[in-house]
Amino acid sequence: MDENISNKISDLRAIMQKNGVQFLIIPTSDPHLSEYVADHWKSRAWITGFTGSAGTAVVSSNEAGLWTDSRYFLQAEEQLAGSGITLYKEGIAGTPSINEWICSKANAGACIGIDGERFSANDVAQMQQTFGRHGLHLKCDASFINELWHDAPALPQSALFPLDIQYAGESLSDKLARTRAFIKKSQANALLITALDEVAWTFNLRASDVDFNPVAIAYAIVYENSAALFTDCHRISDEGKMIFKKANVEVLPYDYIYKVLNDLPKSTKIIVDKCKTNYALTHSIDPENIVEGSSPITFMKSIKNEVEVAGIHKAVVKDGVAMAYAFRWLEECVKSGQKVTEMDFAEKLYQCRSQQANFFCESFGTIAGYGRHGAIVHYSATKESNAVIGQESLLLVDSGANYFDGTTDITRTIIIGSPSKQQKIDYTNVLKGHIALASIQFPQGTHGAQLDVLARQFLWNAGEDYGHGTGHGIGHFLCVHEGPQNIRIRDNGTELQKGMLISNEPGLYKTGQYGIRTENMVLVQEGETTEFGRFLQFETLSLFPFDSKLIEISMLNEKERNWINQYHQKVWDKISPLLDEETQKWLAQKVKTI
Amino acid sequence: MDENISNKISDLRAIMQKNGVQFLIIPTSDPHLSEYVADHWKSRAWITGFTGSAGTAVVSSNEAGLWTDSRYFLQAEEQLAGSGITLYKEGIAGTPSINEWICSKANAGACIGIDGERFSANDVAQMQQTFGRHGLHLKCDASFINELWHDAPALPQSALFPLDIQYAGESLSDKLARTRAFIKKSQANALLITALDEVAWTFNLRASDVDFNPVAIAYAIVYENSAALFTDCHRISDEGKMIFKKANVEVLPYDYIYKVLNDLPKSTKIIVDKCKTNYALTHSIDPENIVEGSSPITFMKSIKNEVEVAGIHKAVVKDGVAMAYAFRWLEECVKSGQKVTEMDFAEKLYQCRSQQANFFCESFGTIAGYGRHGAIVHYSATKESNAVIGQESLLLVDSGANYFDGTTDITRTIIIGSPSKQQKIDYTNVLKGHIALASIQFPQGTHGAQLDVLARQFLWNAGEDYGHGTGHGIGHFLCVHEGPQNIRIRDNGTELQKGMLISNEPGLYKTGQYGIRTENMVLVQEGETTEFGRFLQFETLSLFPFDSKLIEISMLNEKERNWINQYHQKVWDKISPLLDEETQKWLAQKVKTI
Repeated sequence: MDENISNKISDLRAIMQKNGVQFLIIPTSDPHLSEYVADHWKSRAWITGFTGSAGTAVVSSNEAGLWTDSRYFLQAEEQLAGSGITLYKEGIAGTPSINEWICSKANAGACIGIDGERFSANDVAQMQQTFGRHGLHLKCDASFINELWHDAPALPQSALFPLDIQYAGESLSDKLARTRAFIKKSQANALLITALDEVAWTFNLRASDVDFNPVAIAYAIVYENSAALFTDCHRISDEGKMIFKKANVEVLPYDYIYKVLNDLPKSTKIIVDKCKTNYALTHSIDPENIVEGSSPITFMKSIKNEVEVAGIHKAVVKDGVAMAYAFRWLEECVKSGQKVTEMDFAEKLYQCRSQQANFFCESFGTIAGYGRHGAIVHYSATKESNAVIGQESLLLVDSGANYFDGTTDITRTIIIGSPSKQQKIDYTNVLKGHIALASIQFPQGTHGAQLDVLARQFLWNAGEDYGHGTGHGIGHFLCVHEGPQNIRIRDNGTELQKGMLISNEPGLYKTGQYGIRTENMVLVQEGETTEFGRFLQFETLSLFPFDSKLIEISMLNEKERNWINQYHQKVWDKISPLLDEETQKWLAQKVKTI
Repeated sequence: MDENISNKISDLRAIMQKNGVQFLIIPTSDPHLSEYVADHWKSRAWITGFTGSAGTAVVSSNEAGLWTDSRYFLQAEEQLAGSGITLYKEGIAGTPSINEWICSKANAGACIGIDGERFSANDVAQMQQTFGRHGLHLKCDASFINELWHDAPALPQSALFPLDIQYAGESLSDKLARTRAFIKKSQANALLITALDEVAWTFNLRASDVDFNPVAIAYAIVYENSAALFTDCHRISDEGKMIFKKANVEVLPYDYIYKVLNDLPKSTKIIVDKCKTNYALTHSIDPENIVEGSSPITFMKSIKNEVEVAGIHKAVVKDGVAMAYAFRWLEECVKSGQKVTEMDFAEKLYQCRSQQANFFCESFGTIAGYGRHGAIVHYSATKESNAVIGQESLLLVDSGANYFDGTTDITRTIIIGSPSKQQKIDYTNVLKGHIALASIQFPQGTHGAQLDVLARQFLWNAGEDYGHGTGHGIGHFLCVHEGPQNIRIRDNGTELQKGMLISNEPGLYKTGQYGIRTENMVLVQEGETTEFGRFLQFETLSLFPFDSKLIEISMLNEKERNWINQYHQKVWDKISPLLDEETQKWLAQKVKTI
């Protein structure tokens, strides 16, 4: 039993008892419902010891459970070992949902506690319904962890700076104008923006408040003729202040958001996206002021403008160059018997990327998983797990950067020695799915979910599958995961549209053996227009060779072979001119025609 | 201007005016919301002259429109020509929906009329909302066509007979027991069944009330210890009466359904599926008696039991034998210069099928479309259009039968002469999609919509597509179209489950040239179970060769070629022993290894 964790949980239970709360639900999120949360809000990790980026803990008077998805099963098992917290594997037959679990254990009249800042208004409404049907009561101000976590990190205070139009491609005032047009059409006169990347995108501002996401902790309201940004004004650069003043943007302290929303004049009709706005914030607004609606920023942000597209094209070249230096270094080290660990290689990748122009930060923590670690989908090497990279098994490396020009996300799986027949078959089935998705043309109106099977078909026919989505939207010098566009099993109703940036990343994970993933970024581009209508297609952006040693050529048809050869030719054309002679030679080997 | 139609519409407008109705919506459906409706209810066809199986007419004081989908664009254009009725093509950019059209033309306060028997309760609720928002009023008892259509055919009165357990595989009392278990679980004590195929399936009864659908016009209510069937008892066979008596099923006159529902005792809680039950019927029930829910019969019926599956296997053999005789005859006639029209061939197919054991009726009107007629998706030859089948172009033949053993549905596209290069390319792209879908293995939990792209991918990559679903559910000696299972672009939330019967029918339609469709019935069967979970797969049931002359072999990979050769071997093994010597020789040519 991990004493540190069990002591914290005992203390928490004491507070719960004092407040008459029998079950406390502790999610991963922050008040902005972000995917990556600042350390200040990492209460779920603090109370459980599980550091994965997704998961929800529930503590009752005599039990504790953690729910997470297949990406984190192995990591959670390791990190929860001895904590007394039971792991509940989401998506596995027989696993109760959190609500089912609570409802099956709670006595009628029991009180379920949540911190209303960490759940969307819609989520809370659903929970109230579900629990209400079982005679349970939901207490929405149960921010007990705050009472307990005395040494929680402070709110981040990084510098805020404006993103120049040469990178953003659209001025603050133009974005506000488009936003206001939407507000007007919705018969409202204000819009509440709470998602950090939506605030950053709308106001063309960036910061370093959150690891990997170049955003500032801030809320915003766009009014008919002005706007308000809620964040510490001291950390805004002079240039930023000038730009804001010109656009009639007032900067107010972060916490003022509650007061401003609470005091809205009767005439204000503010659009609130109840999926994206936390319950506490929503609750602070008089319902008469609220116009329910989807945030228009989500969609506007997802369609990359011409400047952003040109930027991404630059970013992927830099990323490819950095990868070439790092992978050549790795290969030479390992072959010469030099010891390189997973963490060493992540560090090397960081160094190579950081030398590129306009580098800002990594876009997520590099996943470098050798052998069985590769089968842990979102593996992050720790001092304890940090394996030496060998020649025999597969190395899965998922990494990316935020450049001022754009955000990158790329995964390659390689072997330094010679692959087994099975490794080649597995790799090729994944790669064939990647190619099928990369080369599809599809009619206007197609949703990402319609294309998902293209990436899975060869695995399914081999009795295999992967437990994550095939593609996620990617921000522009913003979050590496953004909506609404995606390629997943379940349809979220979003049409793929020209200018959307998305990942193409099928994988295969053999527990205890190795993991495979091949990921490129793709951009939705114009396809043919025929008598059957307008078609769209993907342009593959990322530029780094696939490991030809891992390709079982007999499993490819001619089109697939051509696709790989043409892709490798493009990689060579774009990357090689920027490499030193030795690395050029190395790359030439990697892109040889198959 | 077609005087007959325009006179009817004038008369209708007079009744509308008398009743203060400015817009009348006339759908295709009957009070059971059937797809195929008995002649008694074909009011939309009567008032417009358009005989397609899908479409909705709207008549206003000075305009009339018909909305239908891409299957019927060409047919509707031909049949509406000169009628003064405007065709609105659904699914084409710029086409207003019926509601949009009405809302854009109606003055505030206008009254929209519908016959509440022809719309589901849910549809009416939505229409009330939509029209209400525009200040329009919905009048739900506007059954004006009934007043006008004096010589409408009478309600059908065919013989009702019990389907023996040797075909049904589950007794009436077992089906009622399963239904009652569901009723109990739903905290209700009765279930209203209004869909004709659901009544037929539950009570193991068949009849000939509707063309192609071996159903009786009837409603039913299942109670805790008894059941009521609402139909004319005189037409039930003595055997049927005995079976019903034993199972405590009371037979009441058809129209009594309204009275019984209206007089339900307070203690009755009846499950009403508001998607499947018409508004008038729903409205006749006290809301306090209603438990809203989905009909459990829809799902129960979709999972074929072992006897049904064995029956379908027999039915497809008979169907294949009939097809072999008919297609051999056609080929020999055409090659010898004998004139065979589309209607002649449909008649020949009917004859060949009707000679098979346990034949009951065709499962839909045969589509035999030569050349450009093949591009009309649901073409039905008329005396005027009836083309002579030649050697140069493609012939698309979609046909099927109801045997006591099961329902069949198969489409083949052939050419009697020599195909052009483009015809081969087009055919092969369709066939490749058919094979990709037929040979996919997929995890338990997969929805049909996830698989749709497999059938479309090769067409999309060629800038082509088809405007219909890829697969529809098929009844067992029942309706050729049944839900909830399907394979379509938009997900309806239904998991494919073992025992579901579905069609696999990609196509390509080149307006003015030719149509292609390759359709087999497939059954969801067990696949592998691996460390990645349980997989399902399709077993292709239909047995008739594809036209090898139309296959561009260079476009196939080895797996696809193997699939065709193995399929043709199976066709030979199952069909050839039942053919005469000459037809065996003919078939041997058709199934030659490619």
